[in-house]
Amino acid sequence: MRMYDIIDSKRLGAELSDEQIRYAVREYTDGNIPDYQMSALLMAVCLNGMNAAETSALTDAMARSGRMLDLSELGENTADKHSTGGVGDKTTLVVAPLAACLGCKVVKMSGRGLGYTGGTIDKLEAIKGFKTSLSIEQMLRQARSTGVVVAGQSAELAPADKKIYALRDVTATVESIPLIASSIMSKKLASGAKCIVFDVKAGSGAFMKTAADAQALARTMVDIGTACGRRVCALITDMDVPLGSAVGNALEVKEAVAVLRGQGPADLADVCVELAARMGSLCSQTPVQECRDKASAALRDGSAFDKFCQWVQEQGGDISCILDTEKLGSARVRRDVICDRDGYICAMNTERIGMCASVLGAGRERKDDPIDPAAGIVIYKKSGQRVHRGDVLATLHTNAADSVAAAEAEYLAALSFADTAPQIKPHILAYVE
Amino acid sequence: MRMYDIIDSKRLGAELSDEQIRYAVREYTDGNIPDYQMSALLMAVCLNGMNAAETSALTDAMARSGRMLDLSELGENTADKHSTGGVGDKTTLVVAPLAACLGCKVVKMSGRGLGYTGGTIDKLEAIKGFKTSLSIEQMLRQARSTGVVVAGQSAELAPADKKIYALRDVTATVESIPLIASSIMSKKLASGAKCIVFDVKAGSGAFMKTAADAQALARTMVDIGTACGRRVCALITDMDVPLGSAVGNALEVKEAVAVLRGQGPADLADVCVELAARMGSLCSQTPVQECRDKASAALRDGSAFDKFCQWVQEQGGDISCILDTEKLGSARVRRDVICDRDGYICAMNTERIGMCASVLGAGRERKDDPIDPAAGIVIYKKSGQRVHRGDVLATLHTNAADSVAAAEAEYLAALSFADTAPQIKPHILAYVE
Repeated sequence: MRMYDIIDSKRLGAELSDEQIRYAVREYTDGNIPDYQMSALLMAVCLNGMNAAETSALTDAMARSGRMLDLSELGENTADKHSTGGVGDKTTLVVAPLAACLGCKVVKMSGRGLGYTGGTIDKLEAIKGFKTSLSIEQMLRQARSTGVVVAGQSAELAPADKKIYALRDVTATVESIPLIASSIMSKKLASGAKCIVFDVKAGSGAFMKTAADAQALARTMVDIGTACGRRVCALITDMDVPLGSAVGNALEVKEAVAVLRGQGPADLADVCVELAARMGSLCSQTPVQECRDKASAALRDGSAFDKFCQWVQEQGGDISCILDTEKLGSARVRRDVICDRDGYICAMNTERIGMCASVLGAGRERKDDPIDPAAGIVIYKKSGQRVHRGDVLATLHTNAADSVAAAEAEYLAALSFADTAPQIKPHILAYVE
Repeated sequence: MRMYDIIDSKRLGAELSDEQIRYAVREYTDGNIPDYQMSALLMAVCLNGMNAAETSALTDAMARSGRMLDLSELGENTADKHSTGGVGDKTTLVVAPLAACLGCKVVKMSGRGLGYTGGTIDKLEAIKGFKTSLSIEQMLRQARSTGVVVAGQSAELAPADKKIYALRDVTATVESIPLIASSIMSKKLASGAKCIVFDVKAGSGAFMKTAADAQALARTMVDIGTACGRRVCALITDMDVPLGSAVGNALEVKEAVAVLRGQGPADLADVCVELAARMGSLCSQTPVQECRDKASAALRDGSAFDKFCQWVQEQGGDISCILDTEKLGSARVRRDVICDRDGYICAMNTERIGMCASVLGAGRERKDDPIDPAAGIVIYKKSGQRVHRGDVLATLHTNAADSVAAAEAEYLAALSFADTAPQIKPHILAYVE
């Protein structure tokens, strides 16, 4: 078998065989196929596509390129959740303990933020002492004891995906549904959970800008997961507005705690309840509505918050910051963004709001940039809301005083106003099962 | 400017600007852009194409990446000829001196054979002593004195093309008309001739398998050449049969000498007269028919042969091998391929005939493989001819006795027979001006 022929077939639009895909992934990961051949193949895949069989084969080959976690000792109710990334998306902090309250064993690996999107690991690390670098053995132990564990992505899992993703990132071959789906799914399959719920974000603050693209990606991932013997479903959720009110790591922890205490913004609580309910339903094979009711009750009666505290403690986090979120720390500089007109907010360019938070210090441009956990934005007025001249639209938080002016301009540039009330989309746009 | 954005634009099907193309070619040639980015761009070009402006810009950027030969001291009648490669294509050996007889100053760089196609440099080197490695100064001197010089491709010319072609060769990105056209044209532009005639081969023994593809390539090259201020035209010639009767280096020299002496196969003589006449017509701006008549006369009256002998001597070749072509040497083993049926030859898979010659030792699989100048095939029966059981179809010549059986099988497998006379195409399929 020759890589040349594999590239040539895909250039001509042919279907690649399982053997060809396995060969390309294995030999590339082992360093026997050079980057320049793999990037040519990736571009051919971007432009000529891959069908369901090819995408499954690619996913499987990447998943098997490293360690495959065996969670079978935890039983059938192991659960994972994956968000495709957005702005203000702190759902994992709420959903992981909430799903554990529904009987799931939540075993999840998460990433860091990059560009305009935040990352769960950065958010968890805003809690003093919280350890995200766990051995697989530690993860299994904690899943057994607490029912919930979230760690940073292990380098042992799906190394082929890591190497291929790094190449896609520099060769403009990221935007391809088969490649995106197989990249996500290879890590999820290697992570071992039986039940997986996807939160595929759609809109200006998401990687998928349209609901149709998000749905296509969700469909592909659900099909791969099902073909590989997992129980999977997906929500398509709106990312044309930030989720909740807080953007920035410590600010988002604070907001997640509010939701876990039965307070906090309704959009965030709704999405969290739905995600946890879906995880619970896949695990217990009971109706979703029953799980929704249980999840809502767990938020109200304090059991979700208790589970959260137990989880934070298990991973070494300082529980006093949770009991009193003021102790999470705050930024030295705060600037209110003031409204200069009457009317309605009709759109928020959510990618720009993410970039604004990044400018304030909450995000990073390059993988190894440091972040400021206290930096971020608290949003008071969102799409659809009536505003008046002089209203405070949001407060910017930062320790980098010289970034405030640019961030304020960026924030205002992200907003569009109208004189009449715009139509507002639901938070949950669709389900894919 | 970032290579990432250039790749991304072409992936999305956009037109690249002159600046983007110049940047990519320059920085890649200088080693500042890695192979994996260039191969991704090349694949995107293969699949999304390039328009005339982009193709011209790419050609120009590659031509200017190295030395641009200045032939202006030779006047306005400098001429070059380029064949896209085939089986039995020894036209340069005839056309170069013939065009010189029509008043052209023929200054040409040629390549070596690879795979099933032969190369002019290998053919010339079948003449004992013939030097193909000439300095540019030697070339200019000889063009002045003799009116004809043919040398191996100089590494100083179009180094960008050399580097990009090597990458295309291993990334399955060769088959793209804008890339093929710009690769050929960049070398032709750098070689400096004012008048260029293309012989674009179409058929089973050519890179372009159909006349339509050949015509598209010819159109693109003629347009680029015209846009760059050269006088250019192209013939589309048939490569569904080998050209002439001889395939193999010394055998082809022998056949070329026969044509130069007013003998030799008619198909070969016709194509040579037409190519030389086109070169003469572009140089002298006189009607093609006038040049055809002159070229035919030069073959008949011995002046083309005299010019050939002068050329061979100028480049150090042993003229006695030309005056008596038996001295070119012959292979130890000869095997007649015998016909086992009555009927007509209705098709010859010319690529397989080229491979058969290669198996006998006349060609090479890899760039640095040695070749045997004496090896090859002499063909007696071609497409359209009536054959009888027991006829000798061809004679195989080789010094590798153990290759004969495989070559004979390959030769026979290349032929198709029918009971009725098939329709036969003309040698010259079309003109592109």
